[in-house]
Amino acid sequence: MMSPNRIGQSTILLPSRPRIAASAAIAGKKEGEGPLSSDFDAIIEDDLFGEETWEKAESRFQFAAADACIRKAGLTGKQVDIALGGDLLNQIMASAMAARELHIPFLGLYGACSTMAESLCIASMLVDGGYARNALCTVSSHYCSAERQYRFPLEYGCQRPPTAQWTVTGAGSALVSSDDTLPTLCRCTHATIGRIVDMAVKDANNMGAAMAPAAADTLARHFADTGRGYADYDLIITGDLGQVGHDVLLTLMQERGLPLDAARYMDCGLAIFDKEQDVHAGGSGCGCSAVVLNGHIMRRFRERTLHRILFMATGALLSPTSSQQGGTIPGIAHAIVLEADA
Amino acid sequence: MMSPNRIGQSTILLPSRPRIAASAAIAGKKEGEGPLSSDFDAIIEDDLFGEETWEKAESRFQFAAADACIRKAGLTGKQVDIALGGDLLNQIMASAMAARELHIPFLGLYGACSTMAESLCIASMLVDGGYARNALCTVSSHYCSAERQYRFPLEYGCQRPPTAQWTVTGAGSALVSSDDTLPTLCRCTHATIGRIVDMAVKDANNMGAAMAPAAADTLARHFADTGRGYADYDLIITGDLGQVGHDVLLTLMQERGLPLDAARYMDCGLAIFDKEQDVHAGGSGCGCSAVVLNGHIMRRFRERTLHRILFMATGALLSPTSSQQGGTIPGIAHAIVLEADA
Repeated sequence: MMSPNRIGQSTILLPSRPRIAASAAIAGKKEGEGPLSSDFDAIIEDDLFGEETWEKAESRFQFAAADACIRKAGLTGKQVDIALGGDLLNQIMASAMAARELHIPFLGLYGACSTMAESLCIASMLVDGGYARNALCTVSSHYCSAERQYRFPLEYGCQRPPTAQWTVTGAGSALVSSDDTLPTLCRCTHATIGRIVDMAVKDANNMGAAMAPAAADTLARHFADTGRGYADYDLIITGDLGQVGHDVLLTLMQERGLPLDAARYMDCGLAIFDKEQDVHAGGSGCGCSAVVLNGHIMRRFRERTLHRILFMATGALLSPTSSQQGGTIPGIAHAIVLEADA
Repeated sequence: MMSPNRIGQSTILLPSRPRIAASAAIAGKKEGEGPLSSDFDAIIEDDLFGEETWEKAESRFQFAAADACIRKAGLTGKQVDIALGGDLLNQIMASAMAARELHIPFLGLYGACSTMAESLCIASMLVDGGYARNALCTVSSHYCSAERQYRFPLEYGCQRPPTAQWTVTGAGSALVSSDDTLPTLCRCTHATIGRIVDMAVKDANNMGAAMAPAAADTLARHFADTGRGYADYDLIITGDLGQVGHDVLLTLMQERGLPLDAARYMDCGLAIFDKEQDVHAGGSGCGCSAVVLNGHIMRRFRERTLHRILFMATGALLSPTSSQQGGTIPGIAHAIVLEADA
């Protein structure tokens, strides 16, 4: 058997067009003060979410998003065949603790900030292939747990450089399903899996620049594989390139002869905060693209103001250890096509 | 569409029976002094593998295993559609660095010591579903990088308690393929995805006890879903329960009315080292089940002394941060059925 469900070098076809039946986005206080506040299912004013530590709080965000998503689909946890999850913490601690409460067979992922797209790519293949009827994708990040793990403890009061991004506190969840009795927000039709691209950026405070080359690579491969271009999408959505990464992507796509169409381009890291919120280069973290996709974008699908988008979350696969050892930051970007029913 | 490729509550059918076309196992010096030494493709005497740090060395093990596996299948990297990988390090640093050199679209996984089974479960679905023709699964661990991350720096000379296990230095890789022109070591026929089970073990030096309940849960679900029992398998292989976890699993399966058949049971953590090698409760780490499966077990398939096995790698989803916060250790076990051609 060849691979009937592939086109071009590296894009996957999903012939049954699995639906996203429900989604949920739980956001933190600062995110709830931004321009997308009305798109979230809940805004949690307490950064600790009633827990004793930031990590346990992040896990609570993740569980809350998963639980809300399952309920919005009209299901119970027992009807979900597989849960896929990930976060930025060492040993994906937030996801493991959330999955422990869900009691659903669990696949742990690590794709840094690309994890929302990675989970949707895998889940849509598992549902399309008939290996799962309902697959739940949930990812999270938390400003406080990420800062102390990747950079400095908050108590240190470190001054952030202008290229720094602000890790979003929040979690998003989406239910991919082949159950025709469930509602349809949109359908998953193609997935392009990212390769690691490393342009030798070393600065953990400049992740946008580290991730943009991976986004350019995946976008160019997606267009080449599918024969599509910007005009085929209402929006090309990157995860959290922020201002610096956005500018790098502009340049890289120009160089490839595929100049970005600004009217059809959106970066979740630039969309989630207002300039007045003092986040420097924009939002970041798994939770950034997760809450924008599962809150804002899914609302627009529900309201039928979007027909087809390419959701391409980008990840900076850095580790504090690799940074300490002088390593450069490997970037990755996974993309999935989401399309409304006609 | 229902889920045609599921049986029972949580087991996945792989109707096209994707083959494992090649495998490779690269082991460290201590592993090369154990009873399975003749099963490895290479034994690396230098723990640093020519690198400057343990983490970079681990990445080199992982790249070497992946590269050897691709070559043994008679392929080049360009012919591999998707690489799946994981390890125990924060932000799966070893896998990201290895995937950076492979230039293959990459899905990063985190399943702690269950990652070899997790990667095979996902890869076999992607190949069976026609989303990839060739999918490469590679995982690694390294004693020196794991000890300093999870417990104490080696230089501290900490005394290990009798329940402690020895993290295997090594990497294993397997190529799952639908290409009928490639050789067939064995075929993937069923997968049972693990749930998180947490019996409130808190001791990071007793991971076998933390993982055994998850193994019991997955094994019992696999038997219930498939209607099979011990007699249907030449071997039920757990990943790295070690002596303590093995004894706990014995008790748990007895309690479930499914007493383990000792003649058909094997634990990679007990198989990889001799008692004289002073490893206390046995081997552990992603690399443990990875080198035993891809070295020893695949040799036995090649020599036609195995017909059908259940490979069930177990993971302890602990994190140093969760331990410091008093958290208990979530366990997980993923299982895949591997079967020789008649």
